[in-house]
Amino acid sequence: MKNIAVIGYGVIGKRVADAVKVQDDMNLAGVCDVVSDWRIQNAVRKGYSIYAATPEAGNEMKAVGISVKGNVQDLLAKADIVVDCTPKKISTKNVEYYKQKGIKFIVQGGEKHETTGHSFSAENNYKSAINLNSTRVVSCNTTSILRTLTALKSAGLLDYARGTLLRRATDPWESHLGGIMNTMVPERDIPSHQGPDAQSVDPDLDVITAAVKVPETLSHMHYWNVKLKKHATKDEVLNAFKTSSRIKLIQYDQGLVSNNTIKEMFLDMGRPWGDMYEVALWEDMLKVVGDELFYAYVVDNQAIVIPETIDAIRALTGIETDGAKSISKTNESLGIN
Amino acid sequence: MKNIAVIGYGVIGKRVADAVKVQDDMNLAGVCDVVSDWRIQNAVRKGYSIYAATPEAGNEMKAVGISVKGNVQDLLAKADIVVDCTPKKISTKNVEYYKQKGIKFIVQGGEKHETTGHSFSAENNYKSAINLNSTRVVSCNTTSILRTLTALKSAGLLDYARGTLLRRATDPWESHLGGIMNTMVPERDIPSHQGPDAQSVDPDLDVITAAVKVPETLSHMHYWNVKLKKHATKDEVLNAFKTSSRIKLIQYDQGLVSNNTIKEMFLDMGRPWGDMYEVALWEDMLKVVGDELFYAYVVDNQAIVIPETIDAIRALTGIETDGAKSISKTNESLGIN
Repeated sequence: MKNIAVIGYGVIGKRVADAVKVQDDMNLAGVCDVVSDWRIQNAVRKGYSIYAATPEAGNEMKAVGISVKGNVQDLLAKADIVVDCTPKKISTKNVEYYKQKGIKFIVQGGEKHETTGHSFSAENNYKSAINLNSTRVVSCNTTSILRTLTALKSAGLLDYARGTLLRRATDPWESHLGGIMNTMVPERDIPSHQGPDAQSVDPDLDVITAAVKVPETLSHMHYWNVKLKKHATKDEVLNAFKTSSRIKLIQYDQGLVSNNTIKEMFLDMGRPWGDMYEVALWEDMLKVVGDELFYAYVVDNQAIVIPETIDAIRALTGIETDGAKSISKTNESLGIN
Repeated sequence: MKNIAVIGYGVIGKRVADAVKVQDDMNLAGVCDVVSDWRIQNAVRKGYSIYAATPEAGNEMKAVGISVKGNVQDLLAKADIVVDCTPKKISTKNVEYYKQKGIKFIVQGGEKHETTGHSFSAENNYKSAINLNSTRVVSCNTTSILRTLTALKSAGLLDYARGTLLRRATDPWESHLGGIMNTMVPERDIPSHQGPDAQSVDPDLDVITAAVKVPETLSHMHYWNVKLKKHATKDEVLNAFKTSSRIKLIQYDQGLVSNNTIKEMFLDMGRPWGDMYEVALWEDMLKVVGDELFYAYVVDNQAIVIPETIDAIRALTGIETDGAKSISKTNESLGIN
């Protein structure tokens, strides 16, 4: 049983901790953060072992009655692998420390590929991550791109893909800090960074993206124009997408007409925070015209990377060397089917 | 001097009336509507001749002190051509009347192509509209598509175009009636209607669109992937766009980073309502990769059809048989350069 440390108990860290907790082949060694407010109280409620990232944080935690198990070094000493979910500035420093001490680690998509030299997306390249010292789980948007294009590529259908990414303005729990309002804000450069980022996992993908921020906080939405290698039927394309257990085909005509309705359905399903680990792709909107394919989908920018992170832990620690088995195990534990 | 009647003094009608007023080769015969509130007071302030669409409306107008010149038949009797800017349900009935009476008329993009059998976009097909009895000025989104793709086509660069259209939720002056909030709502079908609509003007265009509503009211934004007929330089593409006087190349790096900043610039310029008659296309974002072209632009859904409507009046009445001259004259009158 491998011991997992979660450093940074924010929007990703709290989800990773919960996901680790429900695996039967790994143990949550503890979580580490600097806050002593409502955010860390969630870990207190769940009975997680709490470590303080700094001496000051430790004192503040103790002052509000939190039982602090130790400092970050104490946690790292107990861990076989660290999942670093801290903001970029902090994780960059942390990574130096992990490397010096020879600690296995996983970083999130905000980091550069060069930080680890390996970027991870379970259905695409699980095998290449086995027993590595570190990897980077790519960002939410990039994960969705890799899942969908990998499915098309594996079916021998993908020639090249061009996507327009409508990005949500800000995380919902931070929207009081200011997001955009009644406007749209393009990313300065075309191609936007997500296309090249997908190539850090699979250099063979011919993918170009453009991205724009829109004034909503629920999730991202992608529109894709894909050139197929041949004329194909809609069924051939759908069958390709169905090979991925993490693409959920949804029906516009069954009332799933927008981000907010999709969010409500996942809340109905009882998922924590209404989390959508899958790419929700509209089956009835999807259109094939000759050798061209058009489709749109929704991406939960907080949840989609969680199953990927669990798989990355299995790959790096060598708990499981069969990617398909890890994916299947993770799916079952998180209610993905 | 031809006499122009504007039926329907709403968001388009009030702009058409003002634009007619500043032409030196046409005369505003009057405007006709059913409202007697703040909306028609704008026409009162400007000294336009006001006609009542129904007897009840006439009584209400008189009751609030508006000097009513007559009913709709009185206005039509004075007009050489009607620009119908009423909502779709009403314009459909009106059109039957114009046809019975042999009155020349122009409808807006909400109508079907079949209503007139001719759809209009000045830079593409002015000539084919000369002395026709009726035409339809295509919608804001379709107008922007035609301007940009016509420029590329005329330069021999266009193979085919695939666009993602981010549509504003509702008209700003009607947003209290409800628009979408913190979500995005795709149009059910791909292709969305704008691509086929552009083909109603130019059947040769190979264009496919997908559209999604976003929660803002300022303007639309389009992202395009265009396959060129050959490898081209960025300058070749920019030179093609520069052949259109109604495409305004803008710089992201000069602070024009969003719909709202662009809107403020047009308000700064003193345009009525901050109207943007041009397609505002980001020059520095535009990217050519081999024989593929990527760009984004913003469309003012109230203003862009106004110069088109003025040109359509000239074409149908035969005031001007040279499209380029009409476009140039309209541009000058509205401050487009």
